[in-house]
Amino acid sequence: MTQVDVRQKILSDNAAAATVLREHFAAGRTLVVNLISSPGSGKTTLLEATVRALAGRLRLGAIEGDIATERDADRLRALGIPAHQILTGGSCHLDARQVQAALEAHDLGPLDVLFIENVGNLVCPTSYDLGEDFKVALLSVTEGEDKPFKYPSIFSKAEVTVVTKADLLPHVSFRLDDVRGQVTALRPDGALLVTSATTGAGVPEWCALLEARLAAKRGGRS
Amino acid sequence: MTQVDVRQKILSDNAAAATVLREHFAAGRTLVVNLISSPGSGKTTLLEATVRALAGRLRLGAIEGDIATERDADRLRALGIPAHQILTGGSCHLDARQVQAALEAHDLGPLDVLFIENVGNLVCPTSYDLGEDFKVALLSVTEGEDKPFKYPSIFSKAEVTVVTKADLLPHVSFRLDDVRGQVTALRPDGALLVTSATTGAGVPEWCALLEARLAAKRGGRS
Repeated sequence: MTQVDVRQKILSDNAAAATVLREHFAAGRTLVVNLISSPGSGKTTLLEATVRALAGRLRLGAIEGDIATERDADRLRALGIPAHQILTGGSCHLDARQVQAALEAHDLGPLDVLFIENVGNLVCPTSYDLGEDFKVALLSVTEGEDKPFKYPSIFSKAEVTVVTKADLLPHVSFRLDDVRGQVTALRPDGALLVTSATTGAGVPEWCALLEARLAAKRGGRS
Repeated sequence: MTQVDVRQKILSDNAAAATVLREHFAAGRTLVVNLISSPGSGKTTLLEATVRALAGRLRLGAIEGDIATERDADRLRALGIPAHQILTGGSCHLDARQVQAALEAHDLGPLDVLFIENVGNLVCPTSYDLGEDFKVALLSVTEGEDKPFKYPSIFSKAEVTVVTKADLLPHVSFRLDDVRGQVTALRPDGALLVTSATTGAGVPEWCALLEARLAAKRGGRS
């Protein structure tokens, strides 16, 4: 096989595994969200705020992808939700078979929403379907407003872009209108939310979006 | 070829090209620095501060790696140094053959220091030797102090870690001592610099490190 053949086989094998996962999640009536961003954009911190906001209302669980350390799963377990850590070793993204193996090894129980927090990487995770209902791209205001056009693939594939760390806006150069324009150009039907896990800004809107998507998946029954 | 074979062939082809590059840079007596970080950690901003600090003293040039946009090369050209933008398309890292092709297509002239700013990605660029004298890992204080142990490969391969955006320390949770401990554990002989391109803190130390490394490469003649 050539390099191109190998790449195509990897992606077609992944697509097949993702289809099986998607059927599994549909049977369980679980909404699945694949979170993708640079390292340190605040994926786990957003999930912590989400768990606090939705505690007792929805059954939440998480699969955490990292090269090394169980730290992220530990943070979410400390809030009382089931969380499984996938350690990818050197690999720069999660793939569908890793998620399948994680669910087989570690039953998270019946869930309303499963968050899959991908390896911190704005590039490679974009190509791997994990059977999710939708992808979310996170961008912190400290990363600079040029990122959507520099990383167009993820910002066109993500149905939702969450701008994080908005509490730091007074201290950095970040033109929110510019980012909004880029994201809209790349994904005209996408949603953009501006949040701060520190102040709680935007978290109710994010939770409302999740609840609406869950209700839609369940055919109007929430 | 199996997937493992293909991966090994890619890396061995890259190593061969990197050896040729290293000989080319040695002949030109050019110090070459490969900068690796997450998107938005401040690689280009550090280079802008470096160019301003060393203008007229050293001949500087840059090769910029990005998925899309010429924005970073434009920022450095605006400061009067030669800069070539490599657009990788979908690829998540630079490889040695891309750098060879860039130098053949666009002569940057005789240089004291060539900066190669890799694609924003803390994972994949780590595996690809570009013929550089040393790698630099950047970590901004807004990314959180857990990153060295979560991304151990880059922080063990980088001879120098540059903590950036130190001006934001009062506004974020970031235990510098914790980061220093992780980096030292991963790379006991490495250097760690704390910088802010906004205030200029740490930039003189960074420039002094570059000048010392250049003098060492040239056998004590600076």
